[in-house]
Amino acid sequence: MAALFCSEDRRTVYCGELSSADIGREVTVNGWVQRQRDLGALIFIDLRDRTGVVQLAFDDQTEKSIFDKAFEIRSEFVLAAAGTVRPRGEGAVNPNMKTGEVEIAVKSLKVLSAAETPPFEINDNVSVRDELRLRYRYLDLRRPSLQNNIMMRHRIAQVARNYFYENGFLEIETPMMIKPTPEGARDYIVPSRIQPGKFYALPQSPQIYKQLLMLSGYDRYIQLARCFRDEDLRADRQPEFTQIDLEMSFVTQEDIMKMVEGFIERLFGEILGEKVDLPILRMTYRDAMDRFGSDKPDTRFGMEICDISDICRNTGFSVFSSAASQQDGSVRGIVAKGAAETLSRKEIDKFTETAKGIGARGLAYIRWIDDEPSCSFSKFVEKAELLSMCAKLGCEKGDTALIIADKDKVVLPVLGALRGILGRKLGLIPENKYNFLWITEFPFFEWSEETQSWVAMHHPFTMPLDECLEYLDSDPGRVRAKAYDLVLNGTELLSGSIRITDYELQEKMFRSLGLTKEEIEAKFGFLVEAYHYGAPPHGGAGIGLDRLAMLMCKAESLRDVIAFPKVQNASEPMSSCPSYPDPKALEELGLRLIDSKD
Amino acid sequence: MAALFCSEDRRTVYCGELSSADIGREVTVNGWVQRQRDLGALIFIDLRDRTGVVQLAFDDQTEKSIFDKAFEIRSEFVLAAAGTVRPRGEGAVNPNMKTGEVEIAVKSLKVLSAAETPPFEINDNVSVRDELRLRYRYLDLRRPSLQNNIMMRHRIAQVARNYFYENGFLEIETPMMIKPTPEGARDYIVPSRIQPGKFYALPQSPQIYKQLLMLSGYDRYIQLARCFRDEDLRADRQPEFTQIDLEMSFVTQEDIMKMVEGFIERLFGEILGEKVDLPILRMTYRDAMDRFGSDKPDTRFGMEICDISDICRNTGFSVFSSAASQQDGSVRGIVAKGAAETLSRKEIDKFTETAKGIGARGLAYIRWIDDEPSCSFSKFVEKAELLSMCAKLGCEKGDTALIIADKDKVVLPVLGALRGILGRKLGLIPENKYNFLWITEFPFFEWSEETQSWVAMHHPFTMPLDECLEYLDSDPGRVRAKAYDLVLNGTELLSGSIRITDYELQEKMFRSLGLTKEEIEAKFGFLVEAYHYGAPPHGGAGIGLDRLAMLMCKAESLRDVIAFPKVQNASEPMSSCPSYPDPKALEELGLRLIDSKD
Repeated sequence: MAALFCSEDRRTVYCGELSSADIGREVTVNGWVQRQRDLGALIFIDLRDRTGVVQLAFDDQTEKSIFDKAFEIRSEFVLAAAGTVRPRGEGAVNPNMKTGEVEIAVKSLKVLSAAETPPFEINDNVSVRDELRLRYRYLDLRRPSLQNNIMMRHRIAQVARNYFYENGFLEIETPMMIKPTPEGARDYIVPSRIQPGKFYALPQSPQIYKQLLMLSGYDRYIQLARCFRDEDLRADRQPEFTQIDLEMSFVTQEDIMKMVEGFIERLFGEILGEKVDLPILRMTYRDAMDRFGSDKPDTRFGMEICDISDICRNTGFSVFSSAASQQDGSVRGIVAKGAAETLSRKEIDKFTETAKGIGARGLAYIRWIDDEPSCSFSKFVEKAELLSMCAKLGCEKGDTALIIADKDKVVLPVLGALRGILGRKLGLIPENKYNFLWITEFPFFEWSEETQSWVAMHHPFTMPLDECLEYLDSDPGRVRAKAYDLVLNGTELLSGSIRITDYELQEKMFRSLGLTKEEIEAKFGFLVEAYHYGAPPHGGAGIGLDRLAMLMCKAESLRDVIAFPKVQNASEPMSSCPSYPDPKALEELGLRLIDSKD
Repeated sequence: MAALFCSEDRRTVYCGELSSADIGREVTVNGWVQRQRDLGALIFIDLRDRTGVVQLAFDDQTEKSIFDKAFEIRSEFVLAAAGTVRPRGEGAVNPNMKTGEVEIAVKSLKVLSAAETPPFEINDNVSVRDELRLRYRYLDLRRPSLQNNIMMRHRIAQVARNYFYENGFLEIETPMMIKPTPEGARDYIVPSRIQPGKFYALPQSPQIYKQLLMLSGYDRYIQLARCFRDEDLRADRQPEFTQIDLEMSFVTQEDIMKMVEGFIERLFGEILGEKVDLPILRMTYRDAMDRFGSDKPDTRFGMEICDISDICRNTGFSVFSSAASQQDGSVRGIVAKGAAETLSRKEIDKFTETAKGIGARGLAYIRWIDDEPSCSFSKFVEKAELLSMCAKLGCEKGDTALIIADKDKVVLPVLGALRGILGRKLGLIPENKYNFLWITEFPFFEWSEETQSWVAMHHPFTMPLDECLEYLDSDPGRVRAKAYDLVLNGTELLSGSIRITDYELQEKMFRSLGLTKEEIEAKFGFLVEAYHYGAPPHGGAGIGLDRLAMLMCKAESLRDVIAFPKVQNASEPMSSCPSYPDPKALEELGLRLIDSKD
């Protein structure tokens, strides 16, 4: 049935571009059949390409052989059609369609490819199981909403490159088969055939290479870099992802933040027509944790955390008084204004379960429905005490307060999480608002309960704040870093830092992280050595392109902005990947599968 | 010794940008010390950044503490220097230097980083062992010539993106961890931890994904895609390389060639100021083989191959007569004009060795130094016969002819190779000339002596020429394809084709290539299925970015246009990669190294 394509079949206009301005024009369009409607003496075909849909019309003016051909056409056939643009008939104008005022009176029609009935209709409004969509990803990718996402992602990348190129950044490709990186997550590794037993790693980021490029004098580097992490998959993570990766020399933290702000302003302006107010607000890590219980707070709504430790220190409720008196402990709460009636006891119980699920021992609450507040700890406190807690919290008649008493490192993240859930539940989060926020002064070290040692919160190449260098040995927990994250609506978009350029300090930091001299040499020897030969001050950042695209497209999942995503077990259902290898290939690599019985 | 960088140290101008137009200007520069010259009362420092070098001057006008600091400075120290641009003193003007008329009278100087003496001087004119350069790649990358290459590569990528974006191409990222590809070379594979025993492959090209994107209606796709091949390394191959990968729907071969020509014209015009004459010349594969013995001929010089079979059929020299009479055999030669004296017998013997090394059984020659031609087969031929061979070959007094008699598939490539060597040796190849050439009508099938079967010369998705479809079963060797290569100065820059869109034809081609129904299903099942649901005519190409950059930079090796290249055994000497993995990592992957004694 298929016919050969020749130059006369070549499109002269995209389907979605036609409007009443084109009436009378002879055009050729190429595309897929969205649907065919046979009204007896009239046949309409909606033809679709990446720009939209246009109506092809066949009627008593149409040559019979063409009319007959149109009769046979089914959804997803691929056509080349030529004809004259004309106004639609009375009552047939479709104001919801870009091309809704016109149609093409077809004079020539070629079926370039027939199509079997697809397993699901190509339409944004059709509900289809995810597995089926992913198995036929090439069909799902025909849906207009997915096409628009992929096209917007292209434009985001284009604006990024233009902006950074105009600012003197060079796009330099760094290798994909590298020495294992020290980024904390697990590497994907690639066996070497030429040197059996040895392996490459796929990069978790181009971190080391971009730092070396700064030592080499390239001054400003950018790359849209594919990165890889072999993680136990959480929802909406991808084993491969893309980073707008940048690095600058001869700069301070301020210079990098300003450069990034210029990019954000340009990107949101050009693509979404959103004006981003500069400079972007800043908050220290400490403030973000204290006020929002998160290092990536969603500031589109309030409900800030309130510390009531000082009035809980001598209360009869020992859970409160002991937490408030403890070193690094506190009693804090958040208030859901006007939610006393809407949040039932049952729902508060659910919050308690949630809080326990993420580490809290319990959740106290105050509900103020009637004249006086009631609370979950009324047996242990006087009314006056309760009222003063309410006063401190700002909990008034009609409100509900949720309170956690524990160590700060439990209290804050738990309240932060509850705040997020409450905000969504109570509809406090305005749509169409883009709240950017810089988080600064991250701690350099983070205490790992698991390994009972200090680990680097960002990465070990991050420069401590000048004024914190003195605490490196005496009080590591107090050392803050020249590290900064950019947060959008509660999602971390960017993470960056100024790097250590003094190799002696770098070695000291490695040792503080528990590495022996031999480990430093084996893992980072060549990098530390590189800093012996003249290092410019430098720093940079990585911007998560997938997440950025997801937020800008208002997509619900990373899958909706990646052409061929992987699913949760890191497989790709369309091509059945990963798959079992040719045994000969394994043998050439000097590898053997461990028998599961071994 | 290092000092903190602050905003006053920030460059106001790049070193290489200063000229006499800037005299009197107060400037701050940042960079690396190229060299320090201490003339007693005068100190000069050449400061280098990615744009060039500028001279810093310290004299009796300089504040003493700064002069003393300048005295201590050594090569590759990193400085921030501020001062006034002034003309150089009498006789100190350096016309070979972009900034040679000026210097900066330094008023403020900060050492941002000291440097140990590097293992080699950072200078294009210094001879250093390759191993040392690669071990300290970050230092070698400071050399101006390497920096210029990397910057030119950036610009090539930029022009490519601009051109294709302007022509409606979307840059879409395809996955890097995929199902093994069918491109002929060996895949690098990546073990899956979540599904032990299964593997991903790194892509040899995004071929299948870009075809699927066409089926999904994206219409025009481009990607600067990293590709991987685990090959036994030949000189100047890289295990990972970059391709300007493109695909278009609703096009003929002509449309794609025209699009590529527009790119080449723009690229060479914008970056090298070279005018490329369009349309680019075309030659069929058959003609290229017959005339130049190569499917990527260097047409910057002549020395075309001449067929003398017809006059050799009845000669007394049986080597000639039997080859000339044989089916698919011939006697052909090339003539080195005026080289009879320059090419000694000894050198011709070397050519004989070369010819034998690539499959010939021998090499005959004619040398015409004196009044009459002499030849290597004079015992077997009459003088008249020899003269008529000379006449046919165009071999005159002063010339040397090299002749091969064998099957065509030996004769042509051997003469092609000898032609290339002779062209270089005799200085026939003009520098600064860019000869582009399209090669078209490639055979679809190539007979593999190794597997005694037909293999696909391009790849199995290539569309046969319409007029060749009838020979598919009867005479596969006669089937030519809608495939095209773009050759520049004897190097293949691009390879592309129109793809098969008819799944029945695709299955037929797979079967012609010896695949069983089960193999087709296992390897390509999802792809073949995809073509059941409406496929636009489409085709595309891949342009080797590394090679393109190498030719445009006039670099001698791919290594000179890749920031962090690998060496011949696919290792990277700087970071000692690949390396032995953590045994725990292997265990998690369900893998074990095969003991060499196994």
